[in-house]
Amino acid sequence: MPRLVDHEVRRKQITSATRRVITASGLEAVTFQTVAAEAGFSVRLVQYYFGTKQEFLLATHRSVMEDAGARFARRWSDLGEDAEPREAVKAVLTELLPLDDQRREEAIVLGAFAAAAITGQGITTEETLAAPRALVTLVAHQLARAEPSLPSRTNHELDAELILVAAGGITQGMIQGHYTAKSATALVDHLLDRVLGPDTRT
Amino acid sequence: MPRLVDHEVRRKQITSATRRVITASGLEAVTFQTVAAEAGFSVRLVQYYFGTKQEFLLATHRSVMEDAGARFARRWSDLGEDAEPREAVKAVLTELLPLDDQRREEAIVLGAFAAAAITGQGITTEETLAAPRALVTLVAHQLARAEPSLPSRTNHELDAELILVAAGGITQGMIQGHYTAKSATALVDHLLDRVLGPDTRT
Repeated sequence: MPRLVDHEVRRKQITSATRRVITASGLEAVTFQTVAAEAGFSVRLVQYYFGTKQEFLLATHRSVMEDAGARFARRWSDLGEDAEPREAVKAVLTELLPLDDQRREEAIVLGAFAAAAITGQGITTEETLAAPRALVTLVAHQLARAEPSLPSRTNHELDAELILVAAGGITQGMIQGHYTAKSATALVDHLLDRVLGPDTRT
Repeated sequence: MPRLVDHEVRRKQITSATRRVITASGLEAVTFQTVAAEAGFSVRLVQYYFGTKQEFLLATHRSVMEDAGARFARRWSDLGEDAEPREAVKAVLTELLPLDDQRREEAIVLGAFAAAAITGQGITTEETLAAPRALVTLVAHQLARAEPSLPSRTNHELDAELILVAAGGITQGMIQGHYTAKSATALVDHLLDRVLGPDTRT
């Protein structure tokens, strides 16, 4: 079904163009005109695929979550079940931090949607809550593996929240230019030291 | 000099109106028209005080930093020099978190400026860097008081970075509705437990 594939490719080209417009000029710069120009399409073609601006914004948000989710799943699968808990948690955080251009674009786009949601525009926060909750559960599980002796799960959940909220702050600091990849990674290592104890592996 | 006071009151009314427009509808909603309407002034009056939109955006940013700084200084002075380090650090974080309407408005406005700076609009990040650096130094100093036995200042600086970056993530989580005042406070306490050790006071 070559037509169907064409459609998917076109939709992807439009959402990718939308990401680039957001990254370069912010969410408020997104219009049918700017996205069509960035994609090299006519406005009518973009309108054929997405009837409203809200529709292609939602599709763009979904595409970022899917790309990040797929990359995350690959990394997780590469690690295997026997990975050290510290290594596993660090892999989670490394996939979240904007350490390359793609992750930087994702972080800026998601940050722009989050900022818009605060003032009631665009995507509601409910749609972005499921993925962070799943990450908290996943990190808490790794912490429980690392510290099986702790009496209750409460601390693992709180530690996982703390790790992910700090990662969110580091991400913001990186895209605002306060942290380099190096200083951000040092801060992640220090965070893991504080939660899991110093890294004692040789 | 009543004229001079009038001018200051007017400028304050305009920057306060700008804050409310940003909080309600985002930075992209800010125009001479919307700010004048919010302040109950004519567009010409706003233009009399601020020649360009950039000028009253800069003044608004400055007013938020000044208000937060003044409130912070009062809190710090109330604490006194003999405050427990943990109490002092918690006071710093409590002033930063959006736990009431004013601090919520400040956090949303500063977040909007930070997001705009990423895509090259408005305020550059350099202007917002001085205050966080001062806070890192201040928190590191308190951590050094709490743990004088540690051999070097390196860990205090990294711990202070970690505390402030986590506080930034918690602030974002609060204004996005992921955390309540209660769950945010629990996370701050847990953060302090992880950095300073459990709170052993009765």
